[in-house]
Amino acid sequence: MPAEAAPSFVLVPELPPPGERVVLARAESHYLSRVCRARAGDQVRATDGRGGEALLRLLRPGDAVEAEGLALERSERKRQAWICCGAPEGARADWLVEKLAELGVGTFQPISCARAAWGAPAAKRERWRRLAVAALRQSRQRFLMEIRAPVAIGEAIAGLPAEASRWLGEPEGRAASALPGPGSGLAVAAIGPAGGFTADERAALAGAGFVPIAFGRARLRAETAALAWAAWWASAGG
Amino acid sequence: MPAEAAPSFVLVPELPPPGERVVLARAESHYLSRVCRARAGDQVRATDGRGGEALLRLLRPGDAVEAEGLALERSERKRQAWICCGAPEGARADWLVEKLAELGVGTFQPISCARAAWGAPAAKRERWRRLAVAALRQSRQRFLMEIRAPVAIGEAIAGLPAEASRWLGEPEGRAASALPGPGSGLAVAAIGPAGGFTADERAALAGAGFVPIAFGRARLRAETAALAWAAWWASAGG
Repeated sequence: MPAEAAPSFVLVPELPPPGERVVLARAESHYLSRVCRARAGDQVRATDGRGGEALLRLLRPGDAVEAEGLALERSERKRQAWICCGAPEGARADWLVEKLAELGVGTFQPISCARAAWGAPAAKRERWRRLAVAALRQSRQRFLMEIRAPVAIGEAIAGLPAEASRWLGEPEGRAASALPGPGSGLAVAAIGPAGGFTADERAALAGAGFVPIAFGRARLRAETAALAWAAWWASAGG
Repeated sequence: MPAEAAPSFVLVPELPPPGERVVLARAESHYLSRVCRARAGDQVRATDGRGGEALLRLLRPGDAVEAEGLALERSERKRQAWICCGAPEGARADWLVEKLAELGVGTFQPISCARAAWGAPAAKRERWRRLAVAALRQSRQRFLMEIRAPVAIGEAIAGLPAEASRWLGEPEGRAASALPGPGSGLAVAAIGPAGGFTADERAALAGAGFVPIAFGRARLRAETAALAWAAWWASAGG
């Protein structure tokens, strides 16, 4: 659908029920008033990033947009993807975050590995959150990708819900097209850092039930492998 | 496979048969001597980007590396992907080119559409070529992605080989996971520009046999849709 055919779509953490009013945060107000050039009377769509979506009518544009709720509905998340990802090279994490959010990944968990630690201070994570919000607006989704603080790979594995299906990005794995799809529920991918997982890390992942999966035979960069897995997961979503 | 476990991999347009010598171009010499810190006696792998791969022994590092052929083999390309892609927003084409090359796409054909023309002068295409070469080194592939000059969408469609399978990235298409894979031979994807294809362009693509295919229900940016398709194509490659 072309961008101009759809009303603007924004993130509003507390959606108003029909008939009630809400004042939007500065970033979303700026986006609506300056980027989308919305005017009083325009209808816009909003999500709370947790499954809710509302139709709003703008009462007042500007730096603190005021809007009135017209309709509100919620959806449950039937399937969800988490990506546990080692550090890519350089500034590649920014667009990785954007693309994973666009493809509807639920949780981005940076993992520190033997061959690469994450430099992800709070300021960088705040930038990633802004990228995830922009991707949510762009792709018009009801769930905002959660961005977690980096943890060691062992801690990430230990913290996974028991019922999650588990996938390890690996050029020598089985072809994605030859594997059953990720199915419903929670699917988790582990993607190695720029230098790859060590043999010990691979053994720990295998022991935790991670299934090696390949996207072609080429050696992919960390961010490309993460993206390929997310596209594979998204494509099974209907 | 971790980067440090494999010998360096470079692009050498004319590969030497075993026993013959070759002098590498400046960019590849720099990459080997400065980035990989290769020394005389080291073995490196080289491709001509057209299916050939050679094992070389370095005789002399520096700005004009001299090397000797040790072994040479060729492979045929049994399957191939072309992407006809409308212009994404801003500077997103650079990483699009890098990622398509990494995933093994054979031809990148920028297409100018009603809602977005490509600004792709020769200098930009030369930069894209360098990105494609870097991706080839990284992913250790034997085929260099061809980067074509932009053409109008109608011209691109008219120039497609008759036997090619054809796919249209489209959020309302059938789920990729529910479609038969791209199979062998040539597969071509058409991806709309930032503003989307017009109704007329969609009709022309449908008339030319393009099958709508979706990667989840989210509205994807042009570059994300192109990547998702390329990952889907690559994943069927074994």
